[in-house]
Amino acid sequence: MATQLATKYEINADMGEGFGRWKMGPDEELMPFLDAANIACGFHAGDPSIMLKTIQLCKQHNVRAGAHPGLPDLIGFGRRKMDISPRDLHAIVLYQVGALKAMLDAEGVPLSHIKPHGELYFYMQRDPTIMRAVLEAVSVFKVPVYACKNPLQAAMCEELGVLFQEELYVDINYSPEGTIVPVKPGEQITPDMCYERARSAALEDRGIDVNGDAFRYGFGERPFSICLHSDMPAVLENARRTREAVDQANKARSFSAP
Amino acid sequence: MATQLATKYEINADMGEGFGRWKMGPDEELMPFLDAANIACGFHAGDPSIMLKTIQLCKQHNVRAGAHPGLPDLIGFGRRKMDISPRDLHAIVLYQVGALKAMLDAEGVPLSHIKPHGELYFYMQRDPTIMRAVLEAVSVFKVPVYACKNPLQAAMCEELGVLFQEELYVDINYSPEGTIVPVKPGEQITPDMCYERARSAALEDRGIDVNGDAFRYGFGERPFSICLHSDMPAVLENARRTREAVDQANKARSFSAP
Amino acid sequence: MATQLATKYEINADMGEGFGRWKMGPDEELMPFLDAANIACGFHAGDPSIMLKTIQLCKQHNVRAGAHPGLPDLIGFGRRKMDISPRDLHAIVLYQVGALKAMLDAEGVPLSHIKPHGELYFYMQRDPTIMRAVLEAVSVFKVPVYACKNPLQAAMCEELGVLFQEELYVDINYSPEGTIVPVKPGEQITPDMCYERARSAALEDRGIDVNGDAFRYGFGERPFSICLHSDMPAVLENARRTREAVDQANKARSFSAP
Amino acid sequence: MATQLATKYEINADMGEGFGRWKMGPDEELMPFLDAANIACGFHAGDPSIMLKTIQLCKQHNVRAGAHPGLPDLIGFGRRKMDISPRDLHAIVLYQVGALKAMLDAEGVPLSHIKPHGELYFYMQRDPTIMRAVLEAVSVFKVPVYACKNPLQAAMCEELGVLFQEELYVDINYSPEGTIVPVKPGEQITPDMCYERARSAALEDRGIDVNGDAFRYGFGERPFSICLHSDMPAVLENARRTREAVDQANKARSFSAP
Repeated sequence: MATQLATKYEINADMGEGFGRWKMGPDEELMPFLDAANIACGFHAGDPSIMLKTIQLCKQHNVRAGAHPGLPDLIGFGRRKMDISPRDLHAIVLYQVGALKAMLDAEGVPLSHIKPHGELYFYMQRDPTIMRAVLEAVSVFKVPVYACKNPLQAAMCEELGVLFQEELYVDINYSPEGTIVPVKPGEQITPDMCYERARSAALEDRGIDVNGDAFRYGFGERPFSICLHSDMPAVLENARRTREAVDQANKARSFSAP
Repeated sequence: MATQLATKYEINADMGEGFGRWKMGPDEELMPFLDAANIACGFHAGDPSIMLKTIQLCKQHNVRAGAHPGLPDLIGFGRRKMDISPRDLHAIVLYQVGALKAMLDAEGVPLSHIKPHGELYFYMQRDPTIMRAVLEAVSVFKVPVYACKNPLQAAMCEELGVLFQEELYVDINYSPEGTIVPVKPGEQITPDMCYERARSAALEDRGIDVNGDAFRYGFGERPFSICLHSDMPAVLENARRTREAVDQANKARSFSAP
Repeated sequence: MATQLATKYEINADMGEGFGRWKMGPDEELMPFLDAANIACGFHAGDPSIMLKTIQLCKQHNVRAGAHPGLPDLIGFGRRKMDISPRDLHAIVLYQVGALKAMLDAEGVPLSHIKPHGELYFYMQRDPTIMRAVLEAVSVFKVPVYACKNPLQAAMCEELGVLFQEELYVDINYSPEGTIVPVKPGEQITPDMCYERARSAALEDRGIDVNGDAFRYGFGERPFSICLHSDMPAVLENARRTREAVDQANKARSFSAP
Repeated sequence: MATQLATKYEINADMGEGFGRWKMGPDEELMPFLDAANIACGFHAGDPSIMLKTIQLCKQHNVRAGAHPGLPDLIGFGRRKMDISPRDLHAIVLYQVGALKAMLDAEGVPLSHIKPHGELYFYMQRDPTIMRAVLEAVSVFKVPVYACKNPLQAAMCEELGVLFQEELYVDINYSPEGTIVPVKPGEQITPDMCYERARSAALEDRGIDVNGDAFRYGFGERPFSICLHSDMPAVLENARRTREAVDQANKARSFSAP
């Protein structure tokens, strides 16, 4: 169902980020707005039972299920830098995605994609050896990897036969260099801003950077996947408005339903 | 390669039971004597890197690679009783075997079998609901489950379409009821005893229980798999002699090489 | 400050039950209603940073800080049965309470008491060997242990020189035998019920069991400590009303402020 | 017994570095050669039961017991770099040392010293903010911190009222700058070399760096503590010969027995 790139604009978000009795994010309420879920695999969040439950929730809402592997750091939620050898990281990604894949098999749901989480993602962007170690693990599963535009990653994906699905973020900011940057203290990204960013990126390939200057994303004609942060307080409103923008853009571009 | 029952007598042992820098058992030295390895999957022992290394060791020695899932208890080595719901255990087994399976896929090695470890195994024997939860997870992988003779398990396996590979133990004892029991303090199981037990079980279907009385295992014409304890001090000598008995029995029974 | 039994009625509740980025319970809002906090020590909930932050919160609200050690089971929140040897449990309790004690020392706050959490508590009630192993660890710290009335535990405490602080629960039920039992599905314990239960226990030593029959708690003239469940949805209202009952009872009994 | 600096030359080594069923290092055999043990506290190695057993072993051999806190990384044995905030590290050190301290209290053994392990130690050397966060935690326990000569650390210790016990390593090498460096591949440090290094450091304040050039350690008249690596294959022979050098130097310098 998703061993190919997106054929229309879509929305993805991180799901199943609880642990044991601890919850994080409004999974049940957010699911209806999504096309694809990035399911935590137990190293930075999630546990086997939450993973299985999240898969069942995806099934119920007809949302595609992807793997969201992370660094082995529950206390730091996979967001702290750790020095892990490429060989160890390769094994860690195989382990986590494989664990999720078996549960998907049990539930009769295909693995849709793989999206490295938090510091694992940034580690790849900083270090080409790590990027290769992770992508070689990804290549085993024959599904696309999700990430922001990155020429080096695009080239490495092509070399390894991994499809590279470009993403857009609408609830945080972009630097003039086109990389994502956190929201400034006190700054508020409103649901309307999410709508407008999604709309102008899809229909005009146009963004506004953190300095207020316009830039082109360079998506061309290719539909992208919008990632929403499921741990933001306004996520449900962000999702509702982004969904509107995405549905309108798919209609305007005559992208058919899946 | 092993989505079927054994076609000749064979030897299996637990492998990859280290964790991080900690080692356990002489994996490299023991491999040459084995037909199949039960690889720890990270919950009671093992970690992603050790799992991958153990798979590579299997490959090098042409030993089949099976999954050895356990309870989530590193400190207790998966040997302490824990009260885990059937639903959680089901997820735990899917998770661990799936993690190993992805690594096997990456290395081009088929998953040979699944053998529940320690207290997970005994939990199944005690509680039919747990047995079913585990076997339903096993059934996803379409490989045999390894265990000692157990009519209930045999019936449940048949119902779920899981092949049940019977095992024999030669380095611990059997009760008059035909269940395995630990060695008594001070008692010494010698390599020669392993040889003799393997031989008489294979050629005469005959064992001696802890009281010294003879009994029939009931293997009939079916070849079984002998499990050796890889953490016993004499394991290498046990393996050498058991290997001799197995090779002789296979020859005597005209079981061809794999 | 609290190496002695309560000299007036008081309220305690579990605090610091988050883990890494995960939260549980309204710690900040609940603190003002409490006399004593039971701080999770990292085995079933809590981590070093959360422990330290919770101690600082206690300090700020002038709430006594106790240790809330649990079984080593983050995923099960210390509520699953595990088979742990008395020797291991003894070490586990020393470890957790010692860890908290050092942080209290760093912050200049005395250790007030020790209250075993969840299944560790129930394990003690079921198994006298475990009870002794835990109480011997408690005795090292020379502070009271908190628990519901239990003659065996009272005797063992006396033998080991541990003060035994009796507790009352007002937000769950009592069996005719005087043991605490969970609320029935659909049953609602209201804040007013908490108030009335606290009041009648303090002033009349009188409770109503799950069948609606009156019984005597047997507290006699001794003030008790009321434990509120900090993970109940209505906990803040429960705490407000229980606080009123406790303050009124202390006044009625002429128990002076601490 | 050891809330002061060394009054004679001594030997320390890391102890209790097993985990659950996994062993590391010949603790029982090595103890008789030591003056002080650095006991792992459960974050990079060790668990509550091993800690308690190691304390009992110290008691039996009249060896002083110190704390050996590390980074929270069992798989990496506390040797991988992790980005942890100073506030979190402060809490982590308090937690671990406090946990050990409670067990020492239970066994009637004083806490002798604190020695940060592996990457926690190197993190302190690289980052003064981390050094301060750790030393502020150390200061709570009023015992010396063990480390190699470091003027910044010496100054910070003085400011915080922490005694700084200088160490010498004899089983690895020193750079021309006086910092410890790993042994080169193929290089063999013999027990006789340990003897000679210990002797010349004690009696002549003289070392030979990795280039073969002589240098002065700058210990002056102060006795130092020699750290032996307990995970080296030759550790028992290294310890035997180092013990001889230390005993002879104490006699030569007329340092009395403790």
